[in-house]
Amino acid sequence: MSSRGKARTLDPIFSPKSVAVIGASQTEGSVGRAVFSNILEGGFTGVAYPVNLKAPSVCGVRAYSSVSDIPGDIDLGVVIVPATVVPKVIEECGRKGVKGLVVISAGFKEVGSEGARLEADTADIARKYSMRLIGPNCLGIVNTDPVIRMNTSFASKMPAEGSIAFASQSGALCAAILDYARGENIGFSKFVSMGNKADVNENDLLDFLGSDPHTKVILLYVEDIIDGRKFVDVASRVTEKKPIVAVKAGVTPEGAKAASSHTGALAGSEEAYDAILRQSGVLRVESVIELFDYARAFAEQPLPRGNRVAIITNGGGPGIMATDACVRYGLEIAQFSETTKKRLRAGLPKAASVNNPVDIIGDAQADRYEVALRAALWDENVDCGLVMLTPQAMVDIRKVAETIVAIVPQSGKTVVGCLMGLVDVSPGVEVLEQNGIPHYSFPESAVRSLATLYHYQRWIERPRTKVKHFKVDLKSAKQIIGRAKRVGDTNLSQHDAMKVLEAFGFPTVRTEFAETKEEAAKAAARIGFPVAMKIVSPDVVHKVDVGGVKLDLTSERDVREAFREIMKNVASQLPKARLEGVIVQEHVRGGRETIVGMRRDPKFGPLLMFGLGGIYVEAYRDVSFRLAPVRELGAHNMISQIRGSRILEGFRGQPPSDTKALAECIERVSQLALELEDVQELDLNPVVAFEKGCKAVDARIIVGNRS
Amino acid sequence: MSSRGKARTLDPIFSPKSVAVIGASQTEGSVGRAVFSNILEGGFTGVAYPVNLKAPSVCGVRAYSSVSDIPGDIDLGVVIVPATVVPKVIEECGRKGVKGLVVISAGFKEVGSEGARLEADTADIARKYSMRLIGPNCLGIVNTDPVIRMNTSFASKMPAEGSIAFASQSGALCAAILDYARGENIGFSKFVSMGNKADVNENDLLDFLGSDPHTKVILLYVEDIIDGRKFVDVASRVTEKKPIVAVKAGVTPEGAKAASSHTGALAGSEEAYDAILRQSGVLRVESVIELFDYARAFAEQPLPRGNRVAIITNGGGPGIMATDACVRYGLEIAQFSETTKKRLRAGLPKAASVNNPVDIIGDAQADRYEVALRAALWDENVDCGLVMLTPQAMVDIRKVAETIVAIVPQSGKTVVGCLMGLVDVSPGVEVLEQNGIPHYSFPESAVRSLATLYHYQRWIERPRTKVKHFKVDLKSAKQIIGRAKRVGDTNLSQHDAMKVLEAFGFPTVRTEFAETKEEAAKAAARIGFPVAMKIVSPDVVHKVDVGGVKLDLTSERDVREAFREIMKNVASQLPKARLEGVIVQEHVRGGRETIVGMRRDPKFGPLLMFGLGGIYVEAYRDVSFRLAPVRELGAHNMISQIRGSRILEGFRGQPPSDTKALAECIERVSQLALELEDVQELDLNPVVAFEKGCKAVDARIIVGNRS
Repeated sequence: MSSRGKARTLDPIFSPKSVAVIGASQTEGSVGRAVFSNILEGGFTGVAYPVNLKAPSVCGVRAYSSVSDIPGDIDLGVVIVPATVVPKVIEECGRKGVKGLVVISAGFKEVGSEGARLEADTADIARKYSMRLIGPNCLGIVNTDPVIRMNTSFASKMPAEGSIAFASQSGALCAAILDYARGENIGFSKFVSMGNKADVNENDLLDFLGSDPHTKVILLYVEDIIDGRKFVDVASRVTEKKPIVAVKAGVTPEGAKAASSHTGALAGSEEAYDAILRQSGVLRVESVIELFDYARAFAEQPLPRGNRVAIITNGGGPGIMATDACVRYGLEIAQFSETTKKRLRAGLPKAASVNNPVDIIGDAQADRYEVALRAALWDENVDCGLVMLTPQAMVDIRKVAETIVAIVPQSGKTVVGCLMGLVDVSPGVEVLEQNGIPHYSFPESAVRSLATLYHYQRWIERPRTKVKHFKVDLKSAKQIIGRAKRVGDTNLSQHDAMKVLEAFGFPTVRTEFAETKEEAAKAAARIGFPVAMKIVSPDVVHKVDVGGVKLDLTSERDVREAFREIMKNVASQLPKARLEGVIVQEHVRGGRETIVGMRRDPKFGPLLMFGLGGIYVEAYRDVSFRLAPVRELGAHNMISQIRGSRILEGFRGQPPSDTKALAECIERVSQLALELEDVQELDLNPVVAFEKGCKAVDARIIVGNRS
Repeated sequence: MSSRGKARTLDPIFSPKSVAVIGASQTEGSVGRAVFSNILEGGFTGVAYPVNLKAPSVCGVRAYSSVSDIPGDIDLGVVIVPATVVPKVIEECGRKGVKGLVVISAGFKEVGSEGARLEADTADIARKYSMRLIGPNCLGIVNTDPVIRMNTSFASKMPAEGSIAFASQSGALCAAILDYARGENIGFSKFVSMGNKADVNENDLLDFLGSDPHTKVILLYVEDIIDGRKFVDVASRVTEKKPIVAVKAGVTPEGAKAASSHTGALAGSEEAYDAILRQSGVLRVESVIELFDYARAFAEQPLPRGNRVAIITNGGGPGIMATDACVRYGLEIAQFSETTKKRLRAGLPKAASVNNPVDIIGDAQADRYEVALRAALWDENVDCGLVMLTPQAMVDIRKVAETIVAIVPQSGKTVVGCLMGLVDVSPGVEVLEQNGIPHYSFPESAVRSLATLYHYQRWIERPRTKVKHFKVDLKSAKQIIGRAKRVGDTNLSQHDAMKVLEAFGFPTVRTEFAETKEEAAKAAARIGFPVAMKIVSPDVVHKVDVGGVKLDLTSERDVREAFREIMKNVASQLPKARLEGVIVQEHVRGGRETIVGMRRDPKFGPLLMFGLGGIYVEAYRDVSFRLAPVRELGAHNMISQIRGSRILEGFRGQPPSDTKALAECIERVSQLALELEDVQELDLNPVVAFEKGCKAVDARIIVGNRS
């Protein structure tokens, strides 16, 4: 699905044997100069040819005036010429048989519509010759693989080799990250500036990096995602094998948009992005610091089997701070076995704490760290560890660190370090970092990183479920919608909406429409008592507030009386409202109100929503989203993910709600979204969940043309 | 209120002319040695005397065998002798006329009950001689004031001079912070390790540091607060003049506690701490990183007049990340005036963005930064600025930084810097840091710091209100409670609870108790129709779920019928429930349900609570707290602070609720808590808020002995 044939893979771009730098230059300080000299200085293992119209050589290497003049084959063309010349150069590359392109030149989509046209032309030409193209308007790419060693970026020296891949839509951020990584000794496998993504985008790169043996963790900075549905497919596949950590920037507050459904009002594109990332197992973070905090842990440590942490510290306060952070990020403080406590008691001074966090006291040297590590990490109630130290006079911090790196790998457990401070602790920090123990200056970031490893482990271990397919009466549903469309109704009547739901097999409460009190009484008799009655009027928004709702009616007499009262109440409160009649419904007692909805995102397609019902749904925005189609587990996660989910789990002595039935409701909405493309927005509000089963009480369906 | 006479101030401790170090030692690596040599090496401007039983000198200074042998007066005694000897030494200090003490020795409360007794004795002796005492079990204190220059800590070299005061309950954290600060060039005015707080605690230190002219911002790390009510008094006074930023560590998950009221279940000591800090204007943070991020901004920059930020960047991506952070932390992206845009257009290249964020393009040198700063910071729509840079080849970063530090002070606006990266940017970072522009490596922390300055500014500018006093019928309220106590009722009947509320002037719905259907009908007639009816039974928790509630009854006949139905429903669903009767109430239509409550915290006294009503209050824990007494503004803030407050502000076309009436309800509960000390817990649930006024519908009052 994601590979478009051998000729279109990214191998020629990342692992070329020969590179032509078109626009390489002798001029000091020029981009063309920087790129070519970076390729040479980086120690490229293939052949690099400078292409320059006039200069006979660049950096002492013989230059050619055109790519077609180069004698040998060219795998990769790196393009730095002015934007207007780029299409011509790409055409030449195509004719030469170049296999892939990195276009660094700027002046395309980012400068306006003329640039956008130029960009489209450029991409077309590349496509014609089956050349994949990174850029334009990018910083270049880096491959640290010793077999290749290629740095086509113009920003920086070759970064260190490592197992972290980084792909960024922002070139400026690339420059900052390369400088940051140099200071922090962070190594990369691949480093990619994606630029304008005219051809190669995040989906192609995830696909490529997912199967790159040198990459253990993928970091992503994106401002948009080109194809959300495909992203879910590709990223889901990749996160089965390695973690993806992503910053999605450009979170604009959408404000209160005019929307005709709750789901419409709540589901902006930001929610769509969140859904896309979440259902692909991508770890979404808010800052670059987090990207690298987590990347270092993923790159260097095994995943923890569980969330039970042992904390070893030489100071009480830092141990408390680490404990707070564990509570905050969903980790548990491990309960040590008696054997472990005995061992700790035997090896540590009397003043030490043998409970978790283990406080080995300020003057602890390497020997006490050894005792504590050997006891705690070998405890079967411990999944992972945090080793902390605050600098104390006379403590040999380097030796402590050496002890840590010697013992930890033997334990097979996930361990991170936190030597607090900056100057005195630096010899110890160096030892940890050079020996595969990720180090953090403060307990919060150390714990947060451990927690992220744990959450990824949970993703890996989740049960695998399928997208269900329900047998539905598609024909009836389409008839109702077709009829509404023909008469120009974009907002289905409640009655029609309920019929559509019934056709799709949703559990609904029996609902009939009545125009007179006699009709209402008959409808009630058919439905069976008790019933509820609600005003039907296009002019009434909040039915309860105008006395337009009567509940728990137990006889035909009550129904007639209630009809009269409702009409009187509404007429007196809203004299101009058009009163079309009432609906009579089976009266639902007890249960919990929820909302299940769908809205078509203009870019990504149908976005499903779940939340608790009532006025709270919008006030708290406590709702969850997924792109359709949703799998069974995804539907369940939509329910468990909302903050108020404990209400459904059976709260304060109440029985739990049937979340399985709710999940099926979500799955049916997912199927409806795919099979009824005319439905633009849909609210089932409320769906009342009972101890057994659930029922849709009210529905709103907005239809329109698929556009 | 906070000073206990001149003899008890902390001046002799922080600014002594003479210091005796009791337990000073010649032994290399000993604490006694480290403290004395740190005092000498730190450049103490007074006289320091070592006291050692045997050694004739310490660090080349003549030693005395006892403090009483020292010829001159002693202001401060620093004590490092074994714990058991401490009381004797303190006694000697007292007799000698020593004015203040820092007890570094460990082996007190932290080692158990014996140590706790020793600690109490020690504090008693100090008190007897009117000596204030810091510690025991602390790391010492530092005063960087050039007139004093005293470092009695044993951890580290003298830190740099600065305007940040730091006080910590954890000695280990102190050691880490001193090391961290050394690496980050952070200077301190005072540095205090509080230890076990046997005498001097956070309240004394805040009082002292609040009026210390060398301190501009106070950082606090505490694991507990000794006297919450006093903390509110002192901290509120201090935050009028200077910011306090605090980490309160030791956040333990309390789990579901057995409690007889909603407020009791929701208000743990963690909520009390949060209330204490919030109502004192203390900025509570979760990590040490935040402490210092904010401290540097407070120490170096003026407070912003508002929240409108101008962002100047040389790269698009970082600008977007900064914008995201502004949205997240409550800052606005400033809208530039036309003049500003004109100026930007005139001075910047065509490809630059003259809208906010101002993107001056990757190759921008100092001149473009100057144009952008002079335009943006002088715009009257701009309150503060963020200047960003990503490293680009050929850009003279140091010169950019020099330009920033030259221009910013002229603008009078608050500005922070963010030069992203680590190595190439370091010359620029150095220039910013040495010239009063706080610098952050990533946009999130830069923006968060600006936001914190803005939030503190809002605190400073808040309207000042008083604690109101309402005229109430205290006598009646006490009679009802007295009667209940005499018969051993700890849980007042709803009827009695409503009477207490009425005595305290709360708006309540008319409520009568009825045992028979005839009594109910008469009560309804007295109250006026429509009425609501609810079962009264000690065995029914969820009245609605068992059919124990009937609403909107419009005639005596309806009332009789409803009585019969309620009794039948409950008897069939809960055959064993004792049915005492019903209450008949004025039927309340519309409005929003809220909850107002109170619970006595065993440590801090009455804790007030506000939240939205219904099942959501506990599921979302969306409630706010304050210690009583609460001021008018505090009551209003309790309402606006909850996440769901927009529901009360008039949501989706609904009218706003009368938050003024709700605030008064909270204020009355505050008064009730102070005047009815027998009331242990109180829920007004719900208080229904209308467009005008509010009414308490149901109340639960738990009485008990003041303990």
